[in-house]
Amino acid sequence: MDAQVYKSDLIFTKNNKEFTSMEQAYLVVENGKVLGVFDRLPGKYESIPLKAYESGFLIPGFVDLHLHAPQYENLGIGLDEELLTWLNKYAFPEEARFSDAGYAEEVYKEVVRRLWENGTTRSVIFGTAHKGSTEILLRLMKKSGLGAYVGKVNMDRNSSQELTEDTERSLEDTEAILDAYRNERLVKPIITPRFVPSCSPRLMEGLGRLAEKYDAPVQSHLSENTDEVEWVKELHPDCESYAHVYERYGLLRQNRTIMAHCVYCTGSEKELMREKGVFAAHCPISNTDLTSGIAPVKDFIAGGVNLGLGSDISGGHTLWMPEVLVHAIQVSKLYYLYKDKDCGRLTLPEAFYLATKGGGSFFGKVGSFEEDYSFDALLIDDCAIIGQGKRSLEERLQKFIYTGEKGCIIKRFVEGNELGYTER
Amino acid sequence: MDAQVYKSDLIFTKNNKEFTSMEQAYLVVENGKVLGVFDRLPGKYESIPLKAYESGFLIPGFVDLHLHAPQYENLGIGLDEELLTWLNKYAFPEEARFSDAGYAEEVYKEVVRRLWENGTTRSVIFGTAHKGSTEILLRLMKKSGLGAYVGKVNMDRNSSQELTEDTERSLEDTEAILDAYRNERLVKPIITPRFVPSCSPRLMEGLGRLAEKYDAPVQSHLSENTDEVEWVKELHPDCESYAHVYERYGLLRQNRTIMAHCVYCTGSEKELMREKGVFAAHCPISNTDLTSGIAPVKDFIAGGVNLGLGSDISGGHTLWMPEVLVHAIQVSKLYYLYKDKDCGRLTLPEAFYLATKGGGSFFGKVGSFEEDYSFDALLIDDCAIIGQGKRSLEERLQKFIYTGEKGCIIKRFVEGNELGYTER
Repeated sequence: MDAQVYKSDLIFTKNNKEFTSMEQAYLVVENGKVLGVFDRLPGKYESIPLKAYESGFLIPGFVDLHLHAPQYENLGIGLDEELLTWLNKYAFPEEARFSDAGYAEEVYKEVVRRLWENGTTRSVIFGTAHKGSTEILLRLMKKSGLGAYVGKVNMDRNSSQELTEDTERSLEDTEAILDAYRNERLVKPIITPRFVPSCSPRLMEGLGRLAEKYDAPVQSHLSENTDEVEWVKELHPDCESYAHVYERYGLLRQNRTIMAHCVYCTGSEKELMREKGVFAAHCPISNTDLTSGIAPVKDFIAGGVNLGLGSDISGGHTLWMPEVLVHAIQVSKLYYLYKDKDCGRLTLPEAFYLATKGGGSFFGKVGSFEEDYSFDALLIDDCAIIGQGKRSLEERLQKFIYTGEKGCIIKRFVEGNELGYTER
Repeated sequence: MDAQVYKSDLIFTKNNKEFTSMEQAYLVVENGKVLGVFDRLPGKYESIPLKAYESGFLIPGFVDLHLHAPQYENLGIGLDEELLTWLNKYAFPEEARFSDAGYAEEVYKEVVRRLWENGTTRSVIFGTAHKGSTEILLRLMKKSGLGAYVGKVNMDRNSSQELTEDTERSLEDTEAILDAYRNERLVKPIITPRFVPSCSPRLMEGLGRLAEKYDAPVQSHLSENTDEVEWVKELHPDCESYAHVYERYGLLRQNRTIMAHCVYCTGSEKELMREKGVFAAHCPISNTDLTSGIAPVKDFIAGGVNLGLGSDISGGHTLWMPEVLVHAIQVSKLYYLYKDKDCGRLTLPEAFYLATKGGGSFFGKVGSFEEDYSFDALLIDDCAIIGQGKRSLEERLQKFIYTGEKGCIIKRFVEGNELGYTER
């Protein structure tokens, strides 16, 4: 038995209504999973080694449900454009560089280091269309100890010349990766059609077959921008909605699919997502930066749609999940003011839940300190930001989320292992 | 003659249309003022000592036109409320603590250190209603070498019991400070009626007289929140608008008044502001955090209203002006999407101009590297954020604004003096 007791202030969300906070409580971990949290340590655990953190507090690690690793170099660049122009002007040319394995290795090393630094213990990542560079990313993520789904992008139409794939080759490369990594546990492949406009029906059909054959998860983009939605309508006039295109090709797999953005989803689209247990990856910073719009997250929550948060770099300009979480709250306030007074605004527990257990559920029991959850955690040292007075644990978390910095994270755990990864 | 030549990459805005960027150029400073910037150093300056910064770049220091120093301890706290509730629940109780000079000294030291750290070389600050603690802040700011206007707040109605002042005493205290600091150059007092609801007509009239007598600048709040605007209408039904109340009492002084927020200004209010040269302090983060709304900044720009940016801590949750600048761009995109398709969106040069020369103009020739401007500058080391490739100076600035951190600022200058202030 590999077991450990941690004594620390703890704060997490079991649901999206409220925080569970416990001062100087005991968290018992066995084989990477939480056995329980206790105000007083039960006698049967007294023989387990104990580590005490007296000044900081433990929270679940952050989960980023949507990011484009190969766009890291463009962070902060080109945010005066909207989606379709931005893709052609910034995203595609940068992604084309990943045909060069050396370049991929350099950039991906930096991305992995930054994910570690930012306390993003689980992430769902778009690579590029290149098999080679995607395998590099899979290898680097595995080495880091962080959890992830990593996807080789598929795109065989309406893309830049350099990135447009041959349909059969695209499917073969995808299958080769699915096969090679089928027994991995912490870093796994995910089927990744870029988005409907860049995938031919034949490609989507083939990917649907592979998803079925390998029981693989799927990620893509959905209803991010009005021009994009119009374009999909033109390409697939016979489908009821954008989401129904994915559905037709078997790409909305029960509880195994992530759709990024979902800003302009229709009622029937939301209903389809709910039925299929699709996870909406809400990427508020990206949706603001690219002038896409504000996703109706309160509607998704009320409608029972699975929901998490995504940084969507480099449509979004930061990997720092607390900033994504704050921006989610902020845009929900503006949506309330300018679009729908009845929907309410995202609360801090709701947003924190999305950034931990909400997105974490895509990985299974991840994102909470409840029994049987993976012990993915961050130790937060807030002494630099706490100020003069005594604060409740909830206020300390609030200050960390709104004003904290990467330097406040002093330990990172995934499945019970502390990750000391700092390679550059 | 106290003169210095700096050789460095330079980037700044002369106007809000475009950046002026010069690689490895010469900036000549004499007695704290810029004599000029040159691609090649003119012969007549060759005898002046030269400092060369080969890897970083120089930008003008940031100007924060609106912040509440005594609310620093509340940074990140209480942002689930709207303005009027938030004032009573968070702002007023915290400000009441500043009757204690020891507490004021502790908190204000931290605020001053943070302004220095964040590269905010000029700021316009609300203190509290307490004369003593306001004088502490004036002293600490002066010691730091940063430039500022610091105001003792006036409030004699509709405030918490602890903070409500006797009208005569409020005026006497204000005059005592105006008198004591009348000959200061870099850190000066500013007349600071909190906002119309908390100032009686007699108080506002007295403050208008003092402003005239001491030729003093004025700051207050204007049209931040719809409930507040309604309240002002009830209190002053005979005034054409909220701004006209200030105007009636002589508080809109030609080019010497700052009004924070201006989210809900009417057409005639904007016209009055333009006529009087009032500076609107746009505080986008605060306006989002407190669910106030989005100020129509593009309208202000088109209408020729003076404009700068404010952090408005702790309605806003950060002193970091690049984040304020980014949020100004972000909300302008959402305003464009949800309120007014015709107004356009804030560009990066526009927003950078607001954060430097736009707000700096309230201080005179501040916020640019043009001839005769105060040499207020930051040396930015972007090696940690620049990435693998060669970037233009404009892209490097863009990356710094969107992804940089305080640690990127390695030197700070005000009026030609390098500020090494780090006292804790």
